[in-house]
Parts: sequence; C-alpha cells; structure tokens
Amino acid sequence: MPAESPVVADLAEQDLLDRIFPHLPVGSRTLVPPGDDAAVVVAPDGRYVVTCDVLVEDVHFRRRWSSGEDVGRRAAMQNLADVAAMGARPVALVVGLVTPGSTPVAWVEGLARGLGDACRPLDVGVVGGDLSSGPVLVVAVTAHGDLEGRAAVRRSGAQVGDVVAHAGRRGWSAAGLALLTASRAELDPGLVAAYRSPEPHLAAGPAAALAGATAMLDVSDGLLRDGRRLARASGVTLDLDEPTRAFAADAERLASAAGTLGVDVTEWLLTGGEDHGLLATFPPDVPLPDPFGAIGTVTARTSDLVLVGGRPPRGGTTGWDHFGS
Amino acid sequence: MPAESPVVADLAEQDLLDRIFPHLPVGSRTLVPPGDDAAVVVAPDGRYVVTCDVLVEDVHFRRRWSSGEDVGRRAAMQNLADVAAMGARPVALVVGLVTPGSTPVAWVEGLARGLGDACRPLDVGVVGGDLSSGPVLVVAVTAHGDLEGRAAVRRSGAQVGDVVAHAGRRGWSAAGLALLTASRAELDPGLVAAYRSPEPHLAAGPAAALAGATAMLDVSDGLLRDGRRLARASGVTLDLDEPTRAFAADAERLASAAGTLGVDVTEWLLTGGEDHGLLATFPPDVPLPDPFGAIGTVTARTSDLVLVGGRPPRGGTTGWDHFGS
Repeated sequence: MPAESPVVADLAEQDLLDRIFPHLPVGSRTLVPPGDDAAVVVAPDGRYVVTCDVLVEDVHFRRRWSSGEDVGRRAAMQNLADVAAMGARPVALVVGLVTPGSTPVAWVEGLARGLGDACRPLDVGVVGGDLSSGPVLVVAVTAHGDLEGRAAVRRSGAQVGDVVAHAGRRGWSAAGLALLTASRAELDPGLVAAYRSPEPHLAAGPAAALAGATAMLDVSDGLLRDGRRLARASGVTLDLDEPTRAFAADAERLASAAGTLGVDVTEWLLTGGEDHGLLATFPPDVPLPDPFGAIGTVTARTSDLVLVGGRPPRGGTTGWDHFGS
Repeated sequence: MPAESPVVADLAEQDLLDRIFPHLPVGSRTLVPPGDDAAVVVAPDGRYVVTCDVLVEDVHFRRRWSSGEDVGRRAAMQNLADVAAMGARPVALVVGLVTPGSTPVAWVEGLARGLGDACRPLDVGVVGGDLSSGPVLVVAVTAHGDLEGRAAVRRSGAQVGDVVAHAGRRGWSAAGLALLTASRAELDPGLVAAYRSPEPHLAAGPAAALAGATAMLDVSDGLLRDGRRLARASGVTLDLDEPTRAFAADAERLASAAGTLGVDVTEWLLTGGEDHGLLATFPPDVPLPDPFGAIGTVTARTSDLVLVGGRPPRGGTTGWDHFGS
C-alpha cells in the first residue's frame, strides 16, 4: 500500500466516508441529516421537484480530461439545472457512487469537494448517498427542489406567438471538448473549463417562472435536440433566429477555436450540449428576466419542430445522444 | 441484429424508454410525471424522506442467479425498506440505470416489470430516471416517503430498558445465497426466492412509529452489524436473546439448508444480510405492533455494543460489508 497515494481498496468503507463527509454541506433545510436510513428534508409548499442524472466514466467524462472536482461540480450542476428548469430552487442532492478499488482516494475526495463547492453557495444539502465498489466510476445524482408556491414550468406550455428565449452559454462546452479531443486545450482554457465544469444560471429558472414563462427546459443535448423536445411537448414549432445573431457574443467567443479546428461555429451553437443553459418561452408582452435573451418565436406547428431563420436546419445537426454513443 | 432477442445497443434511447415506461406506475401522488426535466411529487406534511442505494452487477447481484424482475424488485424493496425504517410510507422512486450495449432488451424490460410489480401495489410512483450506456449494469435507486405528520424514527433514540424487537425474516436471504453459491438451489427454492427478491414488511415501519418506537433501522447488513449501528447511535448496548429462541420459526425454516451445507444456523440469523427486516426499540410498556417480536433488551452501554445472551458474540460474525468485498 503506497501511503503517499492510497486507492479506494486500501480503505474501509467508513474510512472513505470519513474522508468524504467533511466536504459536503448538510443544507439548512435538512431536518434529518445523512447517517440514518434516510434523510428528511423540508418541502414548505407541500411539493418537491425531483430529477436524476447518471455520469459514467468514459461515456460522460474522462479522468485524463476532468479532475474529481470537475466531475463533482458537473454532476451537481447538471442536476441542479434540471431542477431550475422547472422553475424551482435547488434544495438537496443524494449521490450514488460506484468506484473501482484502484481509484485514488484523492480523486474521490476531489469529487466530494467539487460536489460541496457547487452546493454550498446555493445552500443545497448533500443529504444522502451510497458507496459501492464496481469496475467503472459511476456518479448517480438525484436532485430536489422547492417550487416556493409557484406552478412548475413544464415543456408543454409554449403558445403560438410566444418569444423563445435562452439564458446562459451556448456552445462553450462543445468547443472545450473539441479542443481537448484535438489536444489543443492550451488554445482556450476558458472553453475547456466550461466543458469540465459548466456554470448554469440556476437563478434564471425561478426568475423565468416568476416572469410568466410558458415552457422551459435545460439545454443539455443541444439547442436543436432540446428545442424539438419543447416544441413536440407543446405542439408548436420554434422558429429560431440565425444563431450567429441570436448568440452573437458566444459566436465571437468561439470564433478563434472554431477557426483553428476548422469547425463551423453555427454547429457548436446549434448542437453543442452540456452548457446547461435554459430554453424558455414567454408571452410576447413580458419583459425577459435577466439573463434571458430572445432567440426566436413560437409558430404554429409545421412539418419541422424547429426552424432556423425560417428554414429547416441542415441535416445531421441533431445534437448529442449519450445513450446512442 | 438478431430480431428474436435484441440487445440494448440495437435500440435508440427513445425506443428503449418506450419499452420500459409501460411497466412503471406513475403513482397517485405525482403531480408532474416523468417526461419533463423533473417530476413534482406531493409532500402533504411539508417534509419528505429520501434515501438511495446502488446495485452493481457482480457486486450485489449476478445475472445467472437473478432475473431482471428479481433485480428490479430487489432494487425497489431495499430502498423502500429504508424509507419504512424512518417510520414513513413509501411514495416515489427515481432510477438511474447503466447498461452495457450487450444487455438483452428483455432483461431491461424485466427490470422495469420488477420495479413496477414492487411499486404498484404500494402506490409508489416511478417518477423519473436516467439511462446510460456503460460497461457494467448499475441500478441506482433513490426512494422517497411521507411521514404523514409523524416524527421520523431515527437510530439514536433507544433508551435503557427498552425492548428490542424485529419484524420480518432473518437469515433467509443469506441461506438462499449460500444455496446458490453451493449450486444446491433445488434444496429450498423458497430461500433462494427470498435472496432473489426480498419481501420486507414495509407497513411495519409506520406501524412502529405509531406505536412509539424509540429507534429503528433496516437490517440490510446483518443483525449484529446493524444492531451495533443502532446501539452506537443511541449510546446503549443491545442485549439480544439467543437467536435460535428469538427467531425460532426462522431457525426451524433454515435448519435443513444449514444442515446440508454444514453451516451453523446461528451464523445466518446473526450475520445474514439483505432480508430487510426492521430492527426497532420500544418502551417496555408498549404492545408491539404486528409483526414485531421481542428479541432482547436495551441496557446501559458496555464495552460491547451488542451482546447475545449476555455475552459478546463470537469473533468474526460481523455481517456483510458490501464495499469491502
């Protein structure tokens, strides 16, 4: 046993838990903290929002590209973004963790630190979890939120004439991944950081709900793919503005990396996943809450669920399918 | 592609979801069902109980010993038992599922059927989930429950003089696993079924809470190991009766398998895990709710957290440690 860099198999379960727990906030709304058969969390308005996402090594992340901290923050943030996309405030997480015995303990501590760093500023408690050995790293997060008396904003409420709006980055994560894949991370460390550790605007979810958003979702699989989901659920078509205009600041930010890698920046803007921006629709007379910007309009359903500049998007630009990969 | 027995890699994600969803109950307390970024579930008394457990192939189950239905029922039941052990009524599950592309679709459908079969009679909704490919089967379940206005029954409330009581089977799952390991499943299919698909007394949890239980937990890792957890949390010692007397019916039921395999039945009774019985303590004047039976008394803390017949249990009988295995 190398005392300098122990691996998970060197520790008893309780010893590993003792290394993890100090990094995890309990949360001010947790009535019974971890350590019992289950935690108890307050749900002041008599409802809770719940969602889960699984990250699997070499499917969703690579250890040579992402530290434990990165994966911890990302696992938290992508789940909290789903909570925010209902218009809810994130409150609590539970985490199921599968680790090979050969995993460095430092990596697992990093994961816990990343989870804690993501959750603590938001007063989100990590209220439970389970550890298992297994042949591959798996981080299964279930996140909970509080609607604070508001109606949930679903995917299905978009109305013809609504404004389509987006909050958050577009294409940064895809560009960062492309740089890593091409071994050109040094070209733009900011984009690589956006891939490793996305920073969604979680407060934009409740703000959109308060402002009267008619539909909303978290853009995890790309604007086209997730846009189609919203359009299908609502029985409408989304007519998006030309992406280099709608996301002018993102297009400018991505131009250099796109040029170097020979990628059309429109591709990243339309199909890049994992930025966890929010796509929402608002009645036309509603002032858009910060940081939403208008990116299109809702029209009556046509043969295409999403149009770009009034035309069907080019074939092949369908966004990510984690499962099919 | 063998049309007769397709595997997961043959299907698009949505096609696999379309095979899974029909088996899963939504639950009458689910306000927003699966299909959005998150579900919304009612929490009538302004709190919810939440717990998670992960099952990993070849750590927690083997496909040659357990069908998809078995694993689905077991994944549900062991989580619902944790909810019940707080004194809560189970309400909702979410499921993160990792499957190798080579997994037969029929196995995954079986898993969904098993989850549904466990949940439907209890009006527990399967309110969300996530699918991913990966090199090993992982079933990560997060379960939620409703305390219905009661205080949560924690591990830490046992008082000197309390009665120690247990509800449910003891040792059946361990005996079934031992039969499978010895390739003698035909000797007692009932015990093997108890391993493959435990049937905890979930209603006993709320009943214990109503009756005034001072402490409670789900016995997943064996009576000694989980008894020590309760004793440690409560700052007491549990003095258990001789197991062949305390669990006379179980001892009789296990005798034949134990004799054939050359196992001391006391070992299964004290250290067998995965039956998901409930271990609870009650004030001495309280009539024990069905199906709890008295199995010992709570004494002032001694150097041993658990005594058996007034003496320290034999060395080595510590129960399961999934993680250390």
